[in-house]
Amino acid sequence: MQEEYSTIGRHVVLDVWGVDSALLNSKRKLKKQLKLAAKACGATIVAVKAKAFKPQGVTVAVVLSESHLTIHTYPEKGFAGLDCYTCGSTVDPALAMQYLIKVLKPKQYSARLIRRGDGPMKVEPFK
Amino acid sequence: MQEEYSTIGRHVVLDVWGVDSALLNSKRKLKKQLKLAAKACGATIVAVKAKAFKPQGVTVAVVLSESHLTIHTYPEKGFAGLDCYTCGSTVDPALAMQYLIKVLKPKQYSARLIRRGDGPMKVEPFK
Repeated sequence: MQEEYSTIGRHVVLDVWGVDSALLNSKRKLKKQLKLAAKACGATIVAVKAKAFKPQGVTVAVVLSESHLTIHTYPEKGFAGLDCYTCGSTVDPALAMQYLIKVLKPKQYSARLIRRGDGPMKVEPFK
Repeated sequence: MQEEYSTIGRHVVLDVWGVDSALLNSKRKLKKQLKLAAKACGATIVAVKAKAFKPQGVTVAVVLSESHLTIHTYPEKGFAGLDCYTCGSTVDPALAMQYLIKVLKPKQYSARLIRRGDGPMKVEPFK
């Protein structure tokens, strides 16, 4: 018999402003912190791709067994866009995002929690 | 002078149901189609990571200069969760998603467009 997995998932989308530009331009630090964030929510890391752009900006994409965690940074604006999507009920993407908010220390942020894989998507505030 | 980029971005989040399970379990085909979807919206591909899971399921994550495009599949349920986030105004993630809807031919789907990087996020329906 084919093993089946729940399609139900949670996807947190997070924009942060007022973050230290040196941190947002450090591929090494962001890669390390995204891996720690994945661990903070109990996810299993499959692969990590990090890219530093010229003249500035970094993307880190972490492929998880449970889906993905990403950050895209604009150091010159103190801005980054993040998301964490996890399927199943054992891993909570909110824990990864709460970890990253503590690390990035944004002056402001805006976020949503999207409930996916169970009929029409439901969008909720994320605190 | 430091070059600056707009933080404004669009993020389309898409759940599809009723998709052919063989297609959803083909790492090769999904990798090819996500690369074509990225090209369909004019994005620049930085890296592609594809992973086939046991006993089934595939993840493809495409890192773009403009952000990312991903798919996570559940062949046994005919389900996949996708997202495409692009920054700036020249690349429209809707074009990538419309391309993938044509390829996947889902019986049903649910999607949202999230406007990011310009103050509080705005969530809109996606057709």
